[in-house]
Amino acid sequence: MPAVTVEAANAEALRRLGEARPVLVDCVPAAGLLGLAPHSVLHAGPPIDWTRMCEPLRGALVGALLYEGWAGDPDTAARTAASGAIRLEPCHHRGAVGPMTGLITPSMPVLVVENQAAGLRAAVTLNEGLGKVLRFGANDPTVLRRLAWMRDEAAPLLGRALRRLGGIDLRPLMAQALQMGDEMHQRNVAASSLLVRALAPALVAEGSGGALERVVAFLAGNDQLFLNVAMAAAKAATDSVAAIAGSTVVRAMARNGADFGIRVAGLGDQWFVAPVNTPDGLFFPGFGPADANPDLGDSAIVETIGLGGMAMAASPAVARFVGAGGLDQALRVTEEMREITLAEHPHFRIPTQDDRGAPLGIDVRKVVETGITPLINTGIAGRRAGTGQIGAGVVRAPLGCFVAALEALAALRAPAEAARPGSPGVVAPLRPA
Amino acid sequence: MPAVTVEAANAEALRRLGEARPVLVDCVPAAGLLGLAPHSVLHAGPPIDWTRMCEPLRGALVGALLYEGWAGDPDTAARTAASGAIRLEPCHHRGAVGPMTGLITPSMPVLVVENQAAGLRAAVTLNEGLGKVLRFGANDPTVLRRLAWMRDEAAPLLGRALRRLGGIDLRPLMAQALQMGDEMHQRNVAASSLLVRALAPALVAEGSGGALERVVAFLAGNDQLFLNVAMAAAKAATDSVAAIAGSTVVRAMARNGADFGIRVAGLGDQWFVAPVNTPDGLFFPGFGPADANPDLGDSAIVETIGLGGMAMAASPAVARFVGAGGLDQALRVTEEMREITLAEHPHFRIPTQDDRGAPLGIDVRKVVETGITPLINTGIAGRRAGTGQIGAGVVRAPLGCFVAALEALAALRAPAEAARPGSPGVVAPLRPA
Repeated sequence: MPAVTVEAANAEALRRLGEARPVLVDCVPAAGLLGLAPHSVLHAGPPIDWTRMCEPLRGALVGALLYEGWAGDPDTAARTAASGAIRLEPCHHRGAVGPMTGLITPSMPVLVVENQAAGLRAAVTLNEGLGKVLRFGANDPTVLRRLAWMRDEAAPLLGRALRRLGGIDLRPLMAQALQMGDEMHQRNVAASSLLVRALAPALVAEGSGGALERVVAFLAGNDQLFLNVAMAAAKAATDSVAAIAGSTVVRAMARNGADFGIRVAGLGDQWFVAPVNTPDGLFFPGFGPADANPDLGDSAIVETIGLGGMAMAASPAVARFVGAGGLDQALRVTEEMREITLAEHPHFRIPTQDDRGAPLGIDVRKVVETGITPLINTGIAGRRAGTGQIGAGVVRAPLGCFVAALEALAALRAPAEAARPGSPGVVAPLRPA
Repeated sequence: MPAVTVEAANAEALRRLGEARPVLVDCVPAAGLLGLAPHSVLHAGPPIDWTRMCEPLRGALVGALLYEGWAGDPDTAARTAASGAIRLEPCHHRGAVGPMTGLITPSMPVLVVENQAAGLRAAVTLNEGLGKVLRFGANDPTVLRRLAWMRDEAAPLLGRALRRLGGIDLRPLMAQALQMGDEMHQRNVAASSLLVRALAPALVAEGSGGALERVVAFLAGNDQLFLNVAMAAAKAATDSVAAIAGSTVVRAMARNGADFGIRVAGLGDQWFVAPVNTPDGLFFPGFGPADANPDLGDSAIVETIGLGGMAMAASPAVARFVGAGGLDQALRVTEEMREITLAEHPHFRIPTQDDRGAPLGIDVRKVVETGITPLINTGIAGRRAGTGQIGAGVVRAPLGCFVAALEALAALRAPAEAARPGSPGVVAPLRPA
């Protein structure tokens, strides 16, 4: 496979990523949309089983079984989960994504984002808000009651409102939010506000009484409401480059608390994994780095379309989670990310860089060549189950998964050579000196 | 009056401006709140009569008479207005402000902002949205119908929602909006979205059915909704420095399409006027500089509390209305404004300047010394009545009113010398070389 083919393949991948047209179209139960049978649970990151799960993921899984009524108490739920009776699968394998633990069970409602440029749909859970929430591993009755209310009252109204609107076009909304200081991973206040504004007229047309009041208060009260929507928009965009032979563009980054996994456009559905790092940043009072769980969640999908750490320059306020903070630091992060990306987003532009496009298309080759790994903005979960969120910060993707992916790409190009196990020649020339 | 007194007076003015606590508390009819008798109309800017009014102001005044039922047709309305039968007064004289033509009539609803640090209230009309609107001089039946609907349906619900909430604290909301790219004169998309989010739960609790739908759609559909609120917040802040003997801080800038007027903290309620400039910027298709009306409206009150042109660095998107645009241009404007201001706003901070406070406290002395006059971000009205808005841009305050104010301040300090009419010595030493 000659080099020109890689360039052409990447150009096609970049075109599809840049021209994705995500529209938030519906809110429906996960079971039907994602084909989830009873006792199936989707989770964040690459595949993992109970034995290797971190505490927050285990805690959330226990909560999921209680929520679905598959177990009557936490001990039974934990034994059931440990027994292998629950079919576990990554969200990514079913066209979905989930933040932090990322659990999706059959009766949970999911938001549906359609990439109208590609005719692809992606699903994501509704953001539960702050405090004790399943995505951070909490599973007490308040968490379960909120999930039931979201399923029974919030989601049906939200679905009707979205259908009434004929969907909400997310590309201009997200482009606008970047102009308003969101990078759409750690900071979503602008996008969440714009989303509530867009939804409000349809919500009041479709809802009434106490239900309407509760749903509006729930949606309007959450600055991170849009995070999940951005994730589904990114998933719907990146799934359109799921099979572009020869492309070295990263199409997914996801973490399950043990492994950091990436998928690459030219390598189909295969995961390339490496041990996940632990995020650092600013901690809530009473917590510190020693309390942090290793990196978790599918949310790093937003970095693959130029948001989050890639777009740090759009969010000087978020930059204070890395080093000194401020505009200079924010600009430096985005400039560094330009070294490992292939293009600038044609629609997502950064106002502090005179509307230059956000860094788009993480190139496995460039990551390995430079040794610069993607910087991901993220929430930090407590490592003890039930602690919940303890801070927010940044984390680096581990280099290992990019090296493994590059080796696989090289093996595809030179199958004979790669067939010799352990041949260092395949990737060595591209490694940093 | 020794110089130290000026510094002490200004320090007190800056403290009051910086520590103002504006809270949006209510929406009520103007008549009772502002003491408006029948056939009274408030207008933007310093005092003016029919003979000197520009066409948009005349057009709006005709619309106001039709709206109040004081005339049955436009010709009668114009004759009535020209006859002197209407009592005209600046909004500023009644604790109110209005954008562009700025008309307030007795039955119009006004938003009420209370500066809880000073126990002062200020009023402003509801923003009508875009297109044909009274504030740009339009007065056709669609304009009048919207005004009647705002009075009869929107304002009562908005008032109930605000009272239910116990008011909306504007200082954190405005500080947040600055972090989101608004300078709150030309760009209000963030603040408007945050306001709608804050209002939505109370609106749905107080309203129902078609009325609720119409009000939510009206509020959620207007990116400039917050401009009027910001103006009232600024008025409520600046009225707290209405009488600080010796202070050289500007406490109001306002335009009526003929005159640009300023008021100064140390000079009570007196206006200092000079011929108004005509804004330049970007024009809607089919319009150009020759179509622009001279500068109009009370909205420049926001520049007196560090917003608008003062905070240009927070809004690179707005900077494209001045010269080349972009972040550098935006930073340059705010840096220039720091040369004529005395302090940095303790709460309104600019993210592109590492959260340095916005330029606060325009000093009459510094304006005259440097020859740099405040840069004001503004909408541009068409000079022909009924044309409406034709663009948006920037305009400079004229130097003359600052010179006149400085002369008056000097006269207070040296009454004997100032008593000699025309004495150039009073201000000459401070004029730019």
